[in-house]
Amino acid sequence: MEKIRIKEATVVYFEKPKLKEPVLIEGLPGVGNVGKLAAEHLIDEIKAKKFAEIYSTDFPPQVFVNADGTIRLVKNELYYKRSRKGKDLIILTGDFQGMSPKGQYILAEAVLDIAEEFGASMIYTLGGYGIGMEVEKPRVTGAATHPEIVEELKKYGVIFKGEEGGGIIGASGLLLGLGMLRGLRGACLMGETSGYIVDPNSAREVIKVLTKMLGIKISFARLDEKAEEVKKITDRIRNLEKTLAEKERKEDLRYIG
Amino acid sequence: MEKIRIKEATVVYFEKPKLKEPVLIEGLPGVGNVGKLAAEHLIDEIKAKKFAEIYSTDFPPQVFVNADGTIRLVKNELYYKRSRKGKDLIILTGDFQGMSPKGQYILAEAVLDIAEEFGASMIYTLGGYGIGMEVEKPRVTGAATHPEIVEELKKYGVIFKGEEGGGIIGASGLLLGLGMLRGLRGACLMGETSGYIVDPNSAREVIKVLTKMLGIKISFARLDEKAEEVKKITDRIRNLEKTLAEKERKEDLRYIG
Amino acid sequence: MEKIRIKEATVVYFEKPKLKEPVLIEGLPGVGNVGKLAAEHLIDEIKAKKFAEIYSTDFPPQVFVNADGTIRLVKNELYYKRSRKGKDLIILTGDFQGMSPKGQYILAEAVLDIAEEFGASMIYTLGGYGIGMEVEKPRVTGAATHPEIVEELKKYGVIFKGEEGGGIIGASGLLLGLGMLRGLRGACLMGETSGYIVDPNSAREVIKVLTKMLGIKISFARLDEKAEEVKKITDRIRNLEKTLAEKERKEDLRYIG
Amino acid sequence: MEKIRIKEATVVYFEKPKLKEPVLIEGLPGVGNVGKLAAEHLIDEIKAKKFAEIYSTDFPPQVFVNADGTIRLVKNELYYKRSRKGKDLIILTGDFQGMSPKGQYILAEAVLDIAEEFGASMIYTLGGYGIGMEVEKPRVTGAATHPEIVEELKKYGVIFKGEEGGGIIGASGLLLGLGMLRGLRGACLMGETSGYIVDPNSAREVIKVLTKMLGIKISFARLDEKAEEVKKITDRIRNLEKTLAEKERKEDLRYIG
Repeated sequence: MEKIRIKEATVVYFEKPKLKEPVLIEGLPGVGNVGKLAAEHLIDEIKAKKFAEIYSTDFPPQVFVNADGTIRLVKNELYYKRSRKGKDLIILTGDFQGMSPKGQYILAEAVLDIAEEFGASMIYTLGGYGIGMEVEKPRVTGAATHPEIVEELKKYGVIFKGEEGGGIIGASGLLLGLGMLRGLRGACLMGETSGYIVDPNSAREVIKVLTKMLGIKISFARLDEKAEEVKKITDRIRNLEKTLAEKERKEDLRYIG
Repeated sequence: MEKIRIKEATVVYFEKPKLKEPVLIEGLPGVGNVGKLAAEHLIDEIKAKKFAEIYSTDFPPQVFVNADGTIRLVKNELYYKRSRKGKDLIILTGDFQGMSPKGQYILAEAVLDIAEEFGASMIYTLGGYGIGMEVEKPRVTGAATHPEIVEELKKYGVIFKGEEGGGIIGASGLLLGLGMLRGLRGACLMGETSGYIVDPNSAREVIKVLTKMLGIKISFARLDEKAEEVKKITDRIRNLEKTLAEKERKEDLRYIG
Repeated sequence: MEKIRIKEATVVYFEKPKLKEPVLIEGLPGVGNVGKLAAEHLIDEIKAKKFAEIYSTDFPPQVFVNADGTIRLVKNELYYKRSRKGKDLIILTGDFQGMSPKGQYILAEAVLDIAEEFGASMIYTLGGYGIGMEVEKPRVTGAATHPEIVEELKKYGVIFKGEEGGGIIGASGLLLGLGMLRGLRGACLMGETSGYIVDPNSAREVIKVLTKMLGIKISFARLDEKAEEVKKITDRIRNLEKTLAEKERKEDLRYIG
Repeated sequence: MEKIRIKEATVVYFEKPKLKEPVLIEGLPGVGNVGKLAAEHLIDEIKAKKFAEIYSTDFPPQVFVNADGTIRLVKNELYYKRSRKGKDLIILTGDFQGMSPKGQYILAEAVLDIAEEFGASMIYTLGGYGIGMEVEKPRVTGAATHPEIVEELKKYGVIFKGEEGGGIIGASGLLLGLGMLRGLRGACLMGETSGYIVDPNSAREVIKVLTKMLGIKISFARLDEKAEEVKKITDRIRNLEKTLAEKERKEDLRYIG
């Protein structure tokens, strides 16, 4: 094993797969963890294979402890999946985004270097769009590098609010913005989410749009299960709050009556 | 298109215009957004042409979404305008200033490198001077690299308070301070402003002084319109506050009476 | 004396001892100061010899004043001890851990460089495991780079909670995580501690496990003394609090009665 | 004029004076501004001559505006004074210390490089020692690189508390700590001060000790004047507070009576 010294962006390859014009898909932690949930679901369902890891001095200086007591350094991961009919895929997910602005830029440039090395010229970045309240039926909002991609996304039900001035912060924005400077094309798909809780419900809508666009058929059962679990927890909390509020109201009455 | 990797200050040229002893004008976001409003107004009115963009790992890791759903990476921009009678102009504006002290220094040095490359030896930096309360008729206060420029500015109604110890923070200060170390000359024009709200009213006074000094004639109608809009909004807020205060006063009386 | 200019990790050697397959032991300041107390106790008891110091621009810009009025720059220290029967030891302790994530990574890489230079392939990192309440009998929890080390640690009474997702932050985690990327093996021993106070009691349990594993016999008397001192102080505080609470209760009664 | 681009520590020389074994004296902003006040007083009284300026990307990105409306970039300054009888002096003062730990280290190394270039082997750093309450007669506490310097300082009335563990943060500590690694000698003189207000009274005691040690005779009249001014201001504040407290007490009585 070759010795590695971690820098701002250190890529460790397990394999250098030959891919034909792959599409790069990014889903890292962020608002509602929507992007990461979506990317991980896709990786699981299409059985994508890990081919590289990215370490960074801009990630927290930390290891995670696995269930069996072993540890692993925090990192990002790159998977690939060859496709018979459609496009080959490279999928980026991981534990953290860079912690400083500079680290974010350097990590995004490193990912774009990889994308270009494997011949990718199209990037989809996945994320959550925080709207500050619970969403029963989250819509997918979009942004893209080129007007014709905007038009294409609209056909798949992606919403564009037509207002100037929104911003996309972090890897989902930077990969597209920096990619444009290299002549790459791309789009960001953002599932509406409260922003208060991990949201598999929103992730499902995002991955539904993405897979439809890529012509991939996958099951959403696991995301449905996760969404069901999250719903149970939030319902329980809501009931607890109601009970407490009721109890307080009764006690208030006692004082008065 | 050449591939670009963003560093602390990465300049991307669209054109390298031949200019004769241009004056560099800076108006970046700051107190009351006065500098940016003033610079953007000037660019629009004299129809200056963009010739370069500056990207930086010290800007927020962010893209903006345009009204049509396309995105663009946050940046600074450089415009130029050739003049038949007066001086040629280079105008710097943008989305952000550098976020760290070091980034501020590096970006300012990069801008000065550009200024020198195009033969500029005079710099005007534009900004707001926060005074903590609303100003009906904002005055323009100044500071300069050389005493004779101070005297020149006074002729155009620029105020000098004659007190030791004030400071100018950010690009408006650094471009002059670092410029001095290279033998460049310059002045900072700061419009008085409350510091609480975007202030086109203050920006108009700043750009009035600047254009008079440069011998340029432009319309201020658009800044007047913007100032009118801001006034309407602040008036509406003030009325709302009054109504609310009145209502509270009446309710208080009811409890007492 | 050679002139030294401090960088992110500057190692100053007093001696380059010949060691045979030494074990690296790390105990730096952290939760309950458990790791540092444990490492310092070991150094004292086995009379380990200092052979190097590490300075860093990522340590606080600070000197400490000794009891005799002289000063010393903040630093980390490396000690060694040759063993007739068991393994040779290298022990790392010090005043601070790196203050930034990047500094933590660079310092850990520097320590691993030293470990490898002297032929170490096994690392024990020592720390505290904060549980938010006082612990009468602190247990030692563990984490390791390889499953077989986990099994080995269990034989010595080290606890593994079998839950996904815990994290080890700082040098104790990084040395193992970065070490793995170089093919090194290691384990982290964490003594349970409240996290609110310096905890020699917890440090004793950690060093007991470590010395048993290494086949070293040492006295724990000094740690027992320190634990006794800390207990006296916390008891005194607890009594003071009780007295105050009692006094307040009585005064409350007076108001009511 | 040579063109300058500011880095973490950029030294601009006006002159390279020939000095014989000069003593380096540092007085930068810090607790009670004691060090800076003391250094500036010495510079004024002995009419030391500025020979260099230090700029840094680790200083705030800021210019100061002078009373005449001109500006100057924030910086540190180096002065020298040749002595017929005693030692030649180099004096360091300035607007700021470095803002980050790393910047502090780099700036201190740069100052030590200068000290060595001019043949200095002894450093005195000046500062305040915050004790959290007003001091009528501030004492001067000390710390030094070598025990014999501690003994020497005691002869001049410098206090050593004989307790382990105090720390000296910033340039006053680093210059000595980093200097030791280069074989330089030095001492820190810290005037007791409340830590709440600029303290010329404390600065006078520090500079008294220093000049006595260096065999320099200067007037303290200007520091006495400054101390008098500060005393007037604090007295006025104290009287205002008293009056207010009295008034409140009377109003309280009215409510009760």
